[in-house]
Amino acid sequence: MNVIDIINKTKRKEPLVRDEIEYLVNGYTSGGIPDYQMSAWLMAVCLNGLTDEETLLLTLAMRDSGDILDLGEVKGITVDKHSTGGVGDKTTLIIGPAAAACGVYVPKMSGRGLGHTGGTIDKLESISGYRTELSFEEFRDIVNQTGFSVISQSGSLCPADKKIYALRNATATVDSIPLICASIMSKKLALNADCILLDVKWGTGAFMKTREEAEKLAAIMEKTAKAAGKKCRAVVTDMNEPLGFAIGNSLEIREAVDVLKGRSKGRLYRICMELTADMLELAGKGNHDECVKMAKEAVASGRALEIFRKTIELHGGDGRICDDDSLFPKAKYSHVISASRDVEIISVDAEELGMASLMLGAGRVCKSDDIDSAAGIILEFEAGDKISMDAPLMTLYSDVCSDFHEAAMRAYKAIKFRYLTSRALT
Amino acid sequence: MNVIDIINKTKRKEPLVRDEIEYLVNGYTSGGIPDYQMSAWLMAVCLNGLTDEETLLLTLAMRDSGDILDLGEVKGITVDKHSTGGVGDKTTLIIGPAAAACGVYVPKMSGRGLGHTGGTIDKLESISGYRTELSFEEFRDIVNQTGFSVISQSGSLCPADKKIYALRNATATVDSIPLICASIMSKKLALNADCILLDVKWGTGAFMKTREEAEKLAAIMEKTAKAAGKKCRAVVTDMNEPLGFAIGNSLEIREAVDVLKGRSKGRLYRICMELTADMLELAGKGNHDECVKMAKEAVASGRALEIFRKTIELHGGDGRICDDDSLFPKAKYSHVISASRDVEIISVDAEELGMASLMLGAGRVCKSDDIDSAAGIILEFEAGDKISMDAPLMTLYSDVCSDFHEAAMRAYKAIKFRYLTSRALT
Repeated sequence: MNVIDIINKTKRKEPLVRDEIEYLVNGYTSGGIPDYQMSAWLMAVCLNGLTDEETLLLTLAMRDSGDILDLGEVKGITVDKHSTGGVGDKTTLIIGPAAAACGVYVPKMSGRGLGHTGGTIDKLESISGYRTELSFEEFRDIVNQTGFSVISQSGSLCPADKKIYALRNATATVDSIPLICASIMSKKLALNADCILLDVKWGTGAFMKTREEAEKLAAIMEKTAKAAGKKCRAVVTDMNEPLGFAIGNSLEIREAVDVLKGRSKGRLYRICMELTADMLELAGKGNHDECVKMAKEAVASGRALEIFRKTIELHGGDGRICDDDSLFPKAKYSHVISASRDVEIISVDAEELGMASLMLGAGRVCKSDDIDSAAGIILEFEAGDKISMDAPLMTLYSDVCSDFHEAAMRAYKAIKFRYLTSRALT
Repeated sequence: MNVIDIINKTKRKEPLVRDEIEYLVNGYTSGGIPDYQMSAWLMAVCLNGLTDEETLLLTLAMRDSGDILDLGEVKGITVDKHSTGGVGDKTTLIIGPAAAACGVYVPKMSGRGLGHTGGTIDKLESISGYRTELSFEEFRDIVNQTGFSVISQSGSLCPADKKIYALRNATATVDSIPLICASIMSKKLALNADCILLDVKWGTGAFMKTREEAEKLAAIMEKTAKAAGKKCRAVVTDMNEPLGFAIGNSLEIREAVDVLKGRSKGRLYRICMELTADMLELAGKGNHDECVKMAKEAVASGRALEIFRKTIELHGGDGRICDDDSLFPKAKYSHVISASRDVEIISVDAEELGMASLMLGAGRVCKSDDIDSAAGIILEFEAGDKISMDAPLMTLYSDVCSDFHEAAMRAYKAIKFRYLTSRALT
């Protein structure tokens, strides 16, 4: 077999067979195939696509490049959940405990944030003491005790994905549906839960900018998971606006706790109850309506919050943050942006708010950047709300004040509104 | 400027501007841009193409990566000629002297062969003593004395092309018309003759397999040369069958000498007279008919042969090969393939004959391979000829006998014929 022939086949849209895909993935992972040949192949995939069968074979070859977890000792049905990520997406921290409270087991590995989207691991690390790097045995034991645990992606799973992803970042070959599918699904299949719920986000705050692209990605991911023997459902959700009111690591943990306390019943709560119900349905806990009811009851009863608290404590974190907001790190500086007149909010650009939050220190431009866990933005509205003159639109938090003005301008410009007081004049 | 943005633009078919193309070419040549980013870009070019303007900018950036020759001290109009190469293509050795005999100056740099196509430099090196690596001053002086010189491609011209070409070979990104154009034309423009004749071959024995592709390549090369201020004509010629009767290095020199002696008036002679006339026309020597007449007269008078002989001698080679075939190296083994019945030749596959010749030792599989200058094939027919039973079809020459049988089979299978004796039976 010959790499040049393999590249040529993809270039000519001739499907590769299993042996060829395994040769490519294994050769690249072991270092026998150099970066420059892999990047040529990746670009050919970006422009010519892969068939569904090739996408499955690529996913399996990447899965098989490292360990595959054995969750056999978990005491019940395991359900993994993946979101393609977006601005203010803290759903894992709500639906994991809620689903666990309804009797399923949610073992979860997450990543760190890059660019305008956040990462669940960064959010959890804003809780004092929370350890995100555990051994497999510790992870499995916590899942058995509380039904829920989140750790950071293990290096022993999918080394092929790690290497290919870094190359894609450096060669403008990230935005390819088959490559995104293989990257996500190889890790999901290596984690090896019984059921997988996929939440594919679209809109300005998400990686997929259109609903159509998100639907394509959702369909191929679901097909790949099923072909690999998993129960799977992929849902597509709108991420044109941020999910909830908080953007930034500890700010989002606080909001998740608020939802788990039943204090917040807005869009974030409703979406989380739907996703929890989807997980329960996949696990065979009932029909959708029954599952929504169970999810709501898990929150209303306080059981979901208790699971979150217990999980935090088993990870070495301070569970008291569930009762006392003052235990979170505090930003040195804050700034309130108020409405200059009476306005109605038409829409808000999630990506722009994510970028403003990044400038405040809540995210990373480069992988090696430190993040400021107290930085971020708290919104005071949802689209459609009316805000009176001088009432706050949002509050910005940061430990550094150098970029504050620019971040504030960017956040302000992310909001589209119309002036209510000028109406009479027209 | 950022390489990833540049790759992304080509991936999205957004044209690059001059600064971006220069940044890419200069960065890659200097080593600042790694192979894996360049290969991703090259694959994007293969699949999405470049605009004519981008192709020009790429060609100029590659030209400017090294020296540009100053032919100002050559005593008349300089005409360069390039053939995209094929099996048995020894035209340079005929039309260079013929054009020089008509008063133009032909300074030529050539390459070595790879795979089934031969290289003019390899052919010339089969002449005892011929030096292909001369200083610019020696080269220019020979051109001034005889009107014609061929040396090997100088490393100081177009270092960008050298590096990009090696990467294309390793990443299945060779077959792209804009990249082929930039590779050829950057070298032509760096050689910097006043006029350029381009001979784009198509067919099984050539790199472009269809006439349509060859015409596209011819058009963009001509357009690029003109935009860079050169007089240029590109012609498209059929290379489905080998050019002439000889394939292999010294065998082809002997055939070129035969043509220059006026002994051979077949297809090779006719094509060479047309190409010589094209060069003369470009240089303003008259209309096409007049130029064909001049070219034929240059051969018939023996002036072209004398120029070839003198050029060989000025290069340190043994000019007596023009009179005495026995001065060429001789192959240890030879084998005649004869017709098993009376046959009519329908066609012959030039690429397959090239491959057979390669197996006999006349070419290189890898760049570092040695070649056997006496190896090759002499055909005894052209398509359309009738050959009697037991008459020779071809003779194979080699210094090694190990692959002789397989090469003979391959050469034999390259010929399509019909049996004349079985005709009566149908």
